[in-house]
Amino acid sequence: MAKITIKKIAHDLKLAVSTVSKALSDSHEIGTDTKQRVLDYANQMNYVRNAYASSLKNSRTGNIAVVIPEVADSFFALAINGIETIAQEKKSHVLIYLTQENQAKEKSIMEDFRNGRVDGILISVAGGNTSYPHIRDLQERNIPIVFFDRVAQGVTSPRVVTDDFESGYKATHHLLEKGCKRIDFLSLSGNLSIIDARLEGYKKAISDRGESASRSHVIVCTNDNVHNENILASLLERKENRPDGIIASVEKLTLITYTVCTRLGISIPDEMKVVGFTSLPSAALLQPSLTTITQPAFEIGQTAAKLLFELLEKKSKQSPNKMVLLPSLLHERGSTQIKT
Amino acid sequence: MAKITIKKIAHDLKLAVSTVSKALSDSHEIGTDTKQRVLDYANQMNYVRNAYASSLKNSRTGNIAVVIPEVADSFFALAINGIETIAQEKKSHVLIYLTQENQAKEKSIMEDFRNGRVDGILISVAGGNTSYPHIRDLQERNIPIVFFDRVAQGVTSPRVVTDDFESGYKATHHLLEKGCKRIDFLSLSGNLSIIDARLEGYKKAISDRGESASRSHVIVCTNDNVHNENILASLLERKENRPDGIIASVEKLTLITYTVCTRLGISIPDEMKVVGFTSLPSAALLQPSLTTITQPAFEIGQTAAKLLFELLEKKSKQSPNKMVLLPSLLHERGSTQIKT
Repeated sequence: MAKITIKKIAHDLKLAVSTVSKALSDSHEIGTDTKQRVLDYANQMNYVRNAYASSLKNSRTGNIAVVIPEVADSFFALAINGIETIAQEKKSHVLIYLTQENQAKEKSIMEDFRNGRVDGILISVAGGNTSYPHIRDLQERNIPIVFFDRVAQGVTSPRVVTDDFESGYKATHHLLEKGCKRIDFLSLSGNLSIIDARLEGYKKAISDRGESASRSHVIVCTNDNVHNENILASLLERKENRPDGIIASVEKLTLITYTVCTRLGISIPDEMKVVGFTSLPSAALLQPSLTTITQPAFEIGQTAAKLLFELLEKKSKQSPNKMVLLPSLLHERGSTQIKT
Repeated sequence: MAKITIKKIAHDLKLAVSTVSKALSDSHEIGTDTKQRVLDYANQMNYVRNAYASSLKNSRTGNIAVVIPEVADSFFALAINGIETIAQEKKSHVLIYLTQENQAKEKSIMEDFRNGRVDGILISVAGGNTSYPHIRDLQERNIPIVFFDRVAQGVTSPRVVTDDFESGYKATHHLLEKGCKRIDFLSLSGNLSIIDARLEGYKKAISDRGESASRSHVIVCTNDNVHNENILASLLERKENRPDGIIASVEKLTLITYTVCTRLGISIPDEMKVVGFTSLPSAALLQPSLTTITQPAFEIGQTAAKLLFELLEKKSKQSPNKMVLLPSLLHERGSTQIKT
């Protein structure tokens, strides 16, 4: 395929090379008619601009990055779908990067953005971080960053979150109302904003009930599912002091709770009531159907993407303290039903 | 932050600008000692190369693209995890692009790759395509492409697939063995290689049984879940000629089958037996647990990524007919159990 250059287009249309170049960049210096003529001819000739070359001149790449811990989680899958609807309107490409809940990987990905690969970043941070130099570094370079769901604690940037404290409270209160005497909170190791807030809500609900939330009721899980199953099995195999209620603070811990209860022959909800933080489409179809705290994942993605494009289009700084809070809902189902 | 340029590094180290530039590009023209001196100093000064500028000179971007219809599907979520393990070894970034099962979007994404955004592409094509000029175009530009799972029919490129025909056969044979008299096949509209093969397997199993596979037993669904629920509900509400077995050829149709049966009070497996093509982690936890055809999603992703890096590293053409076939497994569970 013969390569069509700006020079060739300029020659064929009897225009200056600079005129063609400016027309192709949609410069205000060029009249509409000329612009249209150049674009029509370029399309006709199947002319392709070099993205990198034009990126050097324009400051935009047409890409936004979505940096998330994993895709095998319904919250992120739905949030991505929300982000996509907005990006499509803006004719931007969404590039999804996975940190695999690994801080070093998150750092490496973010460092790569220093070089101008993307216009802006939507991020839900990996667990385990205690400081965020890689995020501050991009902020210093004026690359817009919007947090969604999991925010970097101590870093000021626009954010879209849900009411994690209230949800933790609601889930615990619900289990107490259903008669649970000992409720264990399955947490995820790392320094995650969302888990911390859910845990605080749990503790508050317990203490509001006049009981003290001893640390022993918080079970810290990791990203190793086999390890988590073992922790949970040793907890549930106990004869004494076994929980009769579990709050699974992230989706994967919900499914593990079901798996371990099934394996050990512990009946949900008769012997164990379960509330899971999840947007799983199959929640209502599980055996028994699962009571969930469901985040508005799609809307969180959409709202975060809108905030990012506002930052990009104004080319001015939005209030860095901007926070949008979208509430989660408790869906009561079979896993917390009282025996009749 | 003061900008560190190649010129500044050259000045400080008393080297020619071209020497520094070549050292940073790891050119064989520069000796190891000098290279190390330049790299150490550049790191010390926190020097960042402009990705676009260096991409113009080098031919590699360090990015590979994964183009898939959606992420809210366990097959793709697991395949991505497989791809990530290989990309991490190769220190490549994985950029995930979603076509949302939309041919125009797939075309637009692929056109964008003409400009050199990525080194190579792993793709599972969107439904609805009947020809693939956007893929052939990239092939002509020598951008390596590996298909995984859903291949572009009629396009020659390395591919990693599963035994869809055999799986369709196996699923149908299993339902026949369990006594089903009328098995309906839930298909997805579009020209999808995987669905076509699964359907052929289904037809063959029916005809091997001495029955004829009339077209009426194939229910063509779309990407609109509400529409699919309505189609399925009107099928299952019938008093006469209702199927007693269903093969859901993709994951989302499996969950819809469960939802509609629950709503209509049709008991699975007593009145309706179900086999779903899915890698859902919750399959064993559904009510009842789901008999599945499970693809080796993680391995498919890994293998496809390995093939792509072989193409990239050899910088030579691998056999374009290369095909790796990884078999799927039938997991028998509650949804196809015979009443005892």
